[in-house]
Amino acid sequence: MKEVVEEQQDFVKDITKMSDDFDRWYTDVIRKAELADWSGIRGMMVVRPYGWAMWEAITRAFDDMIKESGHENWAFPLLIPREYLMKEAEHVEGFAPEVAWVTRAGAGNEELEEPLAVRPTSETIVGSLIKRYIQSHRDLPKLTNQWNSVVRWEMRSRLFLRSREFWWQEGHTFHANAKEAMDEVDLILGYYRDIAQDWLAVPVLGGKKSPAETFPGAVYTLTLEGLMRDGMALQMGTSHYFGQNFARAYDISFSNKDNERELCYSTSWGISTRLVGALVMAHGDDSGLLVPPKVAPIQVVIVPIFRDAESRAKVEAFIGGWAGELKAAGIRSRVDWRDERPGDKYAHWEMKGVPLRLNVGARDADAGQVELVDRLTRQRRSVPVTGIANKLVDELAAFQNALFARAQDFLSANTFEMSTLAEVVAHFKERSGFVWVPWCGDAECEIRIKAEAGGVTIRSIDPDERASGKCLVCGKPAKHRVALARAY
Amino acid sequence: MKEVVEEQQDFVKDITKMSDDFDRWYTDVIRKAELADWSGIRGMMVVRPYGWAMWEAITRAFDDMIKESGHENWAFPLLIPREYLMKEAEHVEGFAPEVAWVTRAGAGNEELEEPLAVRPTSETIVGSLIKRYIQSHRDLPKLTNQWNSVVRWEMRSRLFLRSREFWWQEGHTFHANAKEAMDEVDLILGYYRDIAQDWLAVPVLGGKKSPAETFPGAVYTLTLEGLMRDGMALQMGTSHYFGQNFARAYDISFSNKDNERELCYSTSWGISTRLVGALVMAHGDDSGLLVPPKVAPIQVVIVPIFRDAESRAKVEAFIGGWAGELKAAGIRSRVDWRDERPGDKYAHWEMKGVPLRLNVGARDADAGQVELVDRLTRQRRSVPVTGIANKLVDELAAFQNALFARAQDFLSANTFEMSTLAEVVAHFKERSGFVWVPWCGDAECEIRIKAEAGGVTIRSIDPDERASGKCLVCGKPAKHRVALARAY
Repeated sequence: MKEVVEEQQDFVKDITKMSDDFDRWYTDVIRKAELADWSGIRGMMVVRPYGWAMWEAITRAFDDMIKESGHENWAFPLLIPREYLMKEAEHVEGFAPEVAWVTRAGAGNEELEEPLAVRPTSETIVGSLIKRYIQSHRDLPKLTNQWNSVVRWEMRSRLFLRSREFWWQEGHTFHANAKEAMDEVDLILGYYRDIAQDWLAVPVLGGKKSPAETFPGAVYTLTLEGLMRDGMALQMGTSHYFGQNFARAYDISFSNKDNERELCYSTSWGISTRLVGALVMAHGDDSGLLVPPKVAPIQVVIVPIFRDAESRAKVEAFIGGWAGELKAAGIRSRVDWRDERPGDKYAHWEMKGVPLRLNVGARDADAGQVELVDRLTRQRRSVPVTGIANKLVDELAAFQNALFARAQDFLSANTFEMSTLAEVVAHFKERSGFVWVPWCGDAECEIRIKAEAGGVTIRSIDPDERASGKCLVCGKPAKHRVALARAY
Repeated sequence: MKEVVEEQQDFVKDITKMSDDFDRWYTDVIRKAELADWSGIRGMMVVRPYGWAMWEAITRAFDDMIKESGHENWAFPLLIPREYLMKEAEHVEGFAPEVAWVTRAGAGNEELEEPLAVRPTSETIVGSLIKRYIQSHRDLPKLTNQWNSVVRWEMRSRLFLRSREFWWQEGHTFHANAKEAMDEVDLILGYYRDIAQDWLAVPVLGGKKSPAETFPGAVYTLTLEGLMRDGMALQMGTSHYFGQNFARAYDISFSNKDNERELCYSTSWGISTRLVGALVMAHGDDSGLLVPPKVAPIQVVIVPIFRDAESRAKVEAFIGGWAGELKAAGIRSRVDWRDERPGDKYAHWEMKGVPLRLNVGARDADAGQVELVDRLTRQRRSVPVTGIANKLVDELAAFQNALFARAQDFLSANTFEMSTLAEVVAHFKERSGFVWVPWCGDAECEIRIKAEAGGVTIRSIDPDERASGKCLVCGKPAKHRVALARAY
């Protein structure tokens, strides 16, 4: 009874309301929920344990997927000679403006003969090194991956979404023919979709990028795009097909079955700590985070409620009787014994987005039950502790599904179909979300959309459906059906 | 000269014999067994999947240990402002000569106002940032860890042991009192001992470093020292107690129970990819590696032997009947179907140090058995495939123990007790290994040992036994019993 009153209070008065200012809400919640902070070094963040544990859950899941299909982790050097970086023209153009250079080193702080780039991405160093390990078609495919951090000298920064250092995996693969390489790019996009949807509970659109949004040096880029609660799109993972572009620039060749020298076909693909930002923006509310159980550092928090030493002892003994079952069942749980009032603890764990909370008082102990509250509905239910672990496993799975369903509903409610630029312009003046339109494929029309609809871009090309009708800009026959949105 | 030789990229055909040239044997076997190579960027290596998988096994094991005792992983920035680096005087002196500096970045390649160091280690950045998260004694202890790579501008390089970039974990912890911090340093050294002995099968000596060998800025350093097969010592992990040194330099304080401001006590500790070098040098032989099963990327290799399509089909069906049981039992195995002769395959997997090999021919298939060969004794035994998974689990455990026992025997046979400098000098002219001696504790005597015994250093101070007798150099009463050795 008392707890109900406490829970009606505004627990989260120190964060900005999402509806008042989404950007500030985002930063506030990330800091208050102890995910990350700016480091004091311009544009570089420090990721705190609660945020890092979410990234670790993603890394374990994805690492298992790629290993199952024969990918192998390597460690390639952090520093890349300028000469390596400069070989693929488009790639250089894309990345050179963002590079940080090591120019001095060692005793005497001497100037290096050749500056070394802190890797902004590793195509150029992997390309330069991998050719040693590829002689014959029998050495292919070469399926490499690396977990690391990269540095890009961004001028605008935003926690998890854009920072001068971020953490990611970068896969680089080399194949004997185009089909295999294109299949690889698809395979990985499928894994990324699993991470986004099954792990982070964020539904995504997937397809090719338009040429303007394609990775520098790629033939084409596949992307996944999620919708955040402010109606803006977030690119959640990309998978690039290079054809022979990089192989030509770095001379990566193999002798085929006829003993002729041939250039490899290559790919690269990455997901990053940006995904932590995605789950914040896709699920959060005015009380803070909602963390999908599969990546939640704490899935169940137990809040003991007691008045005095005697009731505390009773509650502690009671919890001690079954808390071990949770661990045995693989549930990540914590008992919050801090010296705080229950209401403050509720607010704390709601802010951190812990999926399930168990309130446990002396009367619950007597009755052999706990009060179960989930972060999504906040309904309270009494649950007997007999079989509690199995019950919680089921509840966590249900929570994961409910979070995804909620995000799907949000996506559906914010996805539109239009046919003219005027409609699009009018729409984005008032609203946001994804707008599907027919497009002729010309870069000029793409530029006009962006200019007239206030920064709206083509996020993805529908892979399943051929376009019908006319280009929303020029009226020529449409080649593609594309999703427009404002994006991070 | 050596560096030039090591960085040659010619393909290793046969490896040098260990007894002919240990250094070249080491480099040959690392390259031939596909653990790592020089990258072509001076002093920086590329770690290949077979080597990286060993490091991954170590990281998983250690990460589990520290999480169990409440440590948390963070991500601190890669780049450290010069100002942060310069605050702890001894620490600066130790690391400044090895720092690589980012001085230019971004579009226009502009000079930065303040250079940023690529972290050589993170005490200075962790110290600068952690104080935000420490207000009261209730925030302590703060037990942080980070998995990353660091850059040190070494002038001599050696694969895994000394390179300009290496991969490691660095723990940094902050405590309310000296005892807790010193207990932490001990706890971690215990974990490191488990990694060295139980996982890598390398027996170690453990104790304090002499002041001359103490980490820059530390009050004392604990070390583990293993003995390689050439009789040289290798430092396998260190754990540093800083007292309040870093807290003073970085103003890391907390309000104690009496609400007074007090400086924290801190520690740091690390193990690195150097441990992969350790297992190579502690167990290898003229045929290549011997990898301890607990960290072996491949624990069991299955070599099918057949003459024609018919016998191949028979062998394949036979293996298919039970290979799945190995995976289910958690055994990392691989079937080698490459187009090579069985003898070449045997040599290949011996080079790679796979603990157990199963030779499987058509006659074995008929008899429902395999030929089991272990990499240590190379004895061949026929083993029925009924219950093969359990049998192999036992064999792998036995192999792990046998490897450790062999290394222990080697350590015992190469550990000596002496009492005069003359004996020590004579010993190290002919031999190597560990030599225990009594030492007065004076730096001058330490310097003389090194000068007269050709680079021999104090590796570790015996923590268990008080010294008896007189200092081997000056004859004054000994304060410590110390282990001398030549070291990497």
